[in-house]
Amino acid sequence: MSISKESIQEAHERIKPFIHQTPVLTSATLNNFSGAELFFKCENFQKIGAFKIRGGMNASLSLPKDQLQNGLATHSSGNHAQAIAYAARELKTKAFIVMPENSPQVKVDAVRGYGAEITFCENNQQAREATLQSIVEKTGAAFIHPYNDERVITGQATCAKELLEKIPGLDTIVAPVGGGGLLSGTSLSAHYFSSAKVYAAEPEGAADAVLSFRSGKIETAPFVKTIADGLLTKLGDKTFPIIQQYVTDILTVNDTEIIAAMKLVYERMKIVIEPSSAVTLAAVLKNKDVFAGKKVGIIFSGGNVDLKKLGEWFS
Amino acid sequence: MSISKESIQEAHERIKPFIHQTPVLTSATLNNFSGAELFFKCENFQKIGAFKIRGGMNASLSLPKDQLQNGLATHSSGNHAQAIAYAARELKTKAFIVMPENSPQVKVDAVRGYGAEITFCENNQQAREATLQSIVEKTGAAFIHPYNDERVITGQATCAKELLEKIPGLDTIVAPVGGGGLLSGTSLSAHYFSSAKVYAAEPEGAADAVLSFRSGKIETAPFVKTIADGLLTKLGDKTFPIIQQYVTDILTVNDTEIIAAMKLVYERMKIVIEPSSAVTLAAVLKNKDVFAGKKVGIIFSGGNVDLKKLGEWFS
Repeated sequence: MSISKESIQEAHERIKPFIHQTPVLTSATLNNFSGAELFFKCENFQKIGAFKIRGGMNASLSLPKDQLQNGLATHSSGNHAQAIAYAARELKTKAFIVMPENSPQVKVDAVRGYGAEITFCENNQQAREATLQSIVEKTGAAFIHPYNDERVITGQATCAKELLEKIPGLDTIVAPVGGGGLLSGTSLSAHYFSSAKVYAAEPEGAADAVLSFRSGKIETAPFVKTIADGLLTKLGDKTFPIIQQYVTDILTVNDTEIIAAMKLVYERMKIVIEPSSAVTLAAVLKNKDVFAGKKVGIIFSGGNVDLKKLGEWFS
Repeated sequence: MSISKESIQEAHERIKPFIHQTPVLTSATLNNFSGAELFFKCENFQKIGAFKIRGGMNASLSLPKDQLQNGLATHSSGNHAQAIAYAARELKTKAFIVMPENSPQVKVDAVRGYGAEITFCENNQQAREATLQSIVEKTGAAFIHPYNDERVITGQATCAKELLEKIPGLDTIVAPVGGGGLLSGTSLSAHYFSSAKVYAAEPEGAADAVLSFRSGKIETAPFVKTIADGLLTKLGDKTFPIIQQYVTDILTVNDTEIIAAMKLVYERMKIVIEPSSAVTLAAVLKNKDVFAGKKVGIIFSGGNVDLKKLGEWFS
């Protein structure tokens, strides 16, 4: 495994001028509800509204200068697209983003707002990859994968590093898992900078990671249907081995539990998070025996929510 | 006028053990939109989710001990009810809260959650006052008015004092106005602790303060219909003279503008505020000529919102 303690430290210094040191919030009420002492690392307050800027920026800043000049490219309809678009703008180069043609307008607007060039494609993995491939060939832009990339994983690791620097002595950190970029980075930082155990939280409606964790090989979710739209992807061959080695367990929650946790956060903490963030708190509230009496770090991964959905969730 | 600089300083020391020093947030995006440099004093993160705890706690702590023993009493269906209930619990005495029988369940639950005794009455001013009067006679509890009380005004003044301590050199502070407790306190602190001008923001659908400010006597709103449900009351004889003396102007906004501002805050700042908070930002965005190039403090008064309403507002 080639991601060292030093490489995480270097990544953190590299990206610091471009990111926020996000706050760590607490809530007496949620401590009461959980029976644990909770510390929320609020990446919803991060640049672009999500942790993804950490990995995207670290990968971009790691490129040789002549390659950076050709631009950055990726396929994503979510926060990673914004991260790459933002990174390109900051580094004065171009961003080429492949998005499925049915992407929500609010996400298209956000990416375009950073000045990226969007190419739409059919909504399947094959079309995405083919479209991206042709753009990379034409432009010479550097492809930055959303999670299955060591530079990206190293960047995401800086989030837990910051949390551990601010709150020493955490017993546990809970991170959401989709493709595993944030989770693998979190588990590496927990390993290098603390003695905290790492738990992952995953929606039942995208339960590939828990299956993979148990079987020992990368599995596909039996079905994909959850409001946690940042966690739909499956693990990659770079993230999975790290997760296997350093993660203690993967806990699953359903959408009802995710919404209940999200509601508590809006009501009690007065902050806006996206469903993929609430998965962590939902897992902690569901598994009180695992976390009772512990100092628990919870990573709120982002706050990019389509406000129109709130009526549906909180009705 | 009997509220001195020293009395505000004393009030601040008195209530500090019971309140949060709330954060002051900034947003590059909202600075761009407004053409001003904005500093948001986030009382949505305050105990009970609103600034009202400052005045309620200061008034309660100012009572003689033997009177405090008989309990606290007020009539309110909003944040002041929670403030008095919370203060009573902290000070180990009783709270008697008169609420209209049609109060939202979420507010009744919140007050009851702090252990207060609720008495329901018909939803009109006369019934409220009569019910309160009989409770006070029976129990000997101390009545603490939501705003027309110098101890309350002095407590609310500590909010702007904190803001000015954190951000020296503000040109302007904008506060919402309902009964005028927060606004009069804000204008006193601006006067004593800075050279900042104070502007008030008021919903068009509860426009009594702007009328009163212009005519020189306390007026009633021509109609009352706005989503800013914390700002429905009219000015009191204790708050109005302070406002007349120290407030520069009162700016009005309609519900569409309030919702647009609230949406910007949820989307860009990722925090939950109630409509009465958003009135301030709406006024700043509507009157760019007044605030352009200035350092502007904006008081977000609270974040107690019925989440079920979000669907309606953000549809």
